[in-house]
Amino acid sequence: MEKGTDKAVYTVRVQVNDDKGYLGKVFVTIDEAGASVGDITRVGSGINHTTRDIDVLVNDQEHLNRILEELGKLEGTRIQGVANHVEEMHLDGKISVQPRFKVRNISDVRKLYTPGVAYICKQIQADEDLYAKYTYVQSTVAIVTNGTAILGLGDIGVKAGMPVMEGKSLLFSSLVGINGIPVLVDSRDPDEIVATVSRIASGFGAIQLEDIAAPECFEVEDRLADALGVPVMHDDQHGTAVVVLASMLNACKYTGMQIKSASIGIVGLGAAGTGIAKLLMAFGAKSILGTDIKEPAMEMLRQIGGRPADLKTVMEKADIVIATTGVPGLIRPEMVRPRQAIFALSNPNPEIRPEEALAAGAIFAADGRSVNNALAFPGLFKGALSARAKCINNRMKIAAAEAIASEADEGELVPYLLKEGLHQRVAQKVERAAFETGANIQKSR
Amino acid sequence: MEKGTDKAVYTVRVQVNDDKGYLGKVFVTIDEAGASVGDITRVGSGINHTTRDIDVLVNDQEHLNRILEELGKLEGTRIQGVANHVEEMHLDGKISVQPRFKVRNISDVRKLYTPGVAYICKQIQADEDLYAKYTYVQSTVAIVTNGTAILGLGDIGVKAGMPVMEGKSLLFSSLVGINGIPVLVDSRDPDEIVATVSRIASGFGAIQLEDIAAPECFEVEDRLADALGVPVMHDDQHGTAVVVLASMLNACKYTGMQIKSASIGIVGLGAAGTGIAKLLMAFGAKSILGTDIKEPAMEMLRQIGGRPADLKTVMEKADIVIATTGVPGLIRPEMVRPRQAIFALSNPNPEIRPEEALAAGAIFAADGRSVNNALAFPGLFKGALSARAKCINNRMKIAAAEAIASEADEGELVPYLLKEGLHQRVAQKVERAAFETGANIQKSR
Repeated sequence: MEKGTDKAVYTVRVQVNDDKGYLGKVFVTIDEAGASVGDITRVGSGINHTTRDIDVLVNDQEHLNRILEELGKLEGTRIQGVANHVEEMHLDGKISVQPRFKVRNISDVRKLYTPGVAYICKQIQADEDLYAKYTYVQSTVAIVTNGTAILGLGDIGVKAGMPVMEGKSLLFSSLVGINGIPVLVDSRDPDEIVATVSRIASGFGAIQLEDIAAPECFEVEDRLADALGVPVMHDDQHGTAVVVLASMLNACKYTGMQIKSASIGIVGLGAAGTGIAKLLMAFGAKSILGTDIKEPAMEMLRQIGGRPADLKTVMEKADIVIATTGVPGLIRPEMVRPRQAIFALSNPNPEIRPEEALAAGAIFAADGRSVNNALAFPGLFKGALSARAKCINNRMKIAAAEAIASEADEGELVPYLLKEGLHQRVAQKVERAAFETGANIQKSR
Repeated sequence: MEKGTDKAVYTVRVQVNDDKGYLGKVFVTIDEAGASVGDITRVGSGINHTTRDIDVLVNDQEHLNRILEELGKLEGTRIQGVANHVEEMHLDGKISVQPRFKVRNISDVRKLYTPGVAYICKQIQADEDLYAKYTYVQSTVAIVTNGTAILGLGDIGVKAGMPVMEGKSLLFSSLVGINGIPVLVDSRDPDEIVATVSRIASGFGAIQLEDIAAPECFEVEDRLADALGVPVMHDDQHGTAVVVLASMLNACKYTGMQIKSASIGIVGLGAAGTGIAKLLMAFGAKSILGTDIKEPAMEMLRQIGGRPADLKTVMEKADIVIATTGVPGLIRPEMVRPRQAIFALSNPNPEIRPEEALAAGAIFAADGRSVNNALAFPGLFKGALSARAKCINNRMKIAAAEAIASEADEGELVPYLLKEGLHQRVAQKVERAAFETGANIQKSR
């Protein structure tokens, strides 16, 4: 659940005197202004000074200006420039469609386009199984949103959500070499969304639903999964759930807890909380308590086999607490039970900070910074597509979670997102699970 | 109107004795078997023989086998292999989605995806004008089909049509560097098609309608063009019309005819014929006669300002005849009037072969081989997107036709499809016409 913050990242180029203390003052100044420091890169050095690019996370332009002013007052420090690399990297978008063949001459055109292509069309018309062979669909995922729950920003509309969809597409391509096509469905009505996606689904090998608000997301996913012959997965539910299960598997290893026998409390039953509850039950968890301020969310938990309760009860009974409410500080230290494991996953500000939870007696505590669903979705979809699966069932999700967990270094909850070969190995496990469960032959839960 | 044939292209590798006469016999053999020869490439040579790859256009596998058998009987000739390059070039599809940035480290991910992307989303939310700046939409075209009129193959369904849509996408990318996204709308109902495309239109900078059967194509295009704030163009009508106008401009130059004052006869009022009639009227043609076997098509011609008539009358009255019926041999030599100009554009077999038409007294005759709508659509869409036009109006289409015509070498009707810089220059003319007509400010015909 690496979800959005509203910080802006600027890169400040500063030349700082190499003598002791000067660089430290730069960081203190940034810290005291309420900003944080990201990557620092050396870009040059002189006889007695070094030039560095410092990524600074600020609230807005005004915040940045105040920091620049303060930095300007420091002795032995000279600001050489400010860049907004985030802005630059998003200019004109982050993806492009490229031909897989270079068109060298008219003979190529006649083979790739008319008249040669007619032969290929007729082959597919005669045998629909050849559709996957002669087109890009079997490596292509529609990334579908209606813009109602973009990151942590909420209902900002489809157009403002496009940069996130392009980001997912970029990760699909970069991490597992599949094509992600952003599809913006401009509607809040589940009937319309289902009708629209159903009518264009033939053009894709799988459908990733993304940043669609609860409760519509549940209905849309269920109905599309029933209607279509290709995998349909709402990432905010299941991508997140897979990564949470992966990190829980490792947390259990370190603490000796057991997911199957532990009492598990889910605080917040939106898309993420509900998806986590579903997957934990599929994994074998016997006792799932959950709480939400919305009654329909509680009812849905009951329907899928969990027990609704109030926050107080959940905190008192649960051995493992997973919070996905988006409410910073919701869990107060005095609510923490000794030897409880706490995953407070809301970003950027968790329900309780890990150090507070540990100080209050938790045996284990984590926040959402490392629980990035980009760990899961590329391998899940790549594996499903490779298997020509008709669904992404629970065994495939659990296989992904176990694969991700097993890739973490000792002491870590989850592996480094860009670990060499990680996503290919996750995909292979998902593909195997698809075959073992017959997901390539018929749909299952 | 380079539309489909159902020929298959095989590449036959033959080693032929270099002495006089042997190679000729190879071509005679292929010709006598009713096949035609495409590209020939030398791939090796020995002391007294040369090895060549010969592209052979055949009706089917059996036809190929007969030719191979005949070639096998020739002295001094040895078949070394047969490849189906068309098949190979279409394996796994012809396009892919690629990131515009290489993801090097987690800092890149945090800028391209969460949390950095949230800053970009918020910018767009605050100012929708930034949507074009920070996403790929302003260089992205949806290539929309419902599979009802794929090439000359007809209603073969959306999946069998996908290779053509990928082919268009490949040409968009290769010729003008824009992204073409295939969108298969699985419906024959104009209401459903319009509703579906309207709901996903936010994700694209323009909509190209493709291979949708008449008469639904007219209604779908009109309604979408009215509903959406981006250019909508049905290529089978207008892409074709632009290329036909371009070739007519050159034909007129060579014959001294005038489009504006000539009597023009359109034989066949499907998507292409109707699109041609509309564009010629917009260009200033005063007298358009047209004929079709379907009464509604005749009625539509009347609505747009043309005069319906029977085939006999059209042939008797028209100075310039344009046929797009798909009926080979429809125009018999005795129907040709002296000094008539005849464009018999149906592919692969025209309504009358140019040599027959000329023998019957035509001043000018052409068939559809060189009239490829790939000459028009890349520049039309690139120009419209560059101008941020809200439509592709008649002045933009005429600008494209004039640009294409002016690029033809002396004596040619249209330029070489892959002529260096051709499509960029067409795009520039279209962009200028968009600004001159205010298409960037408001929609117009």
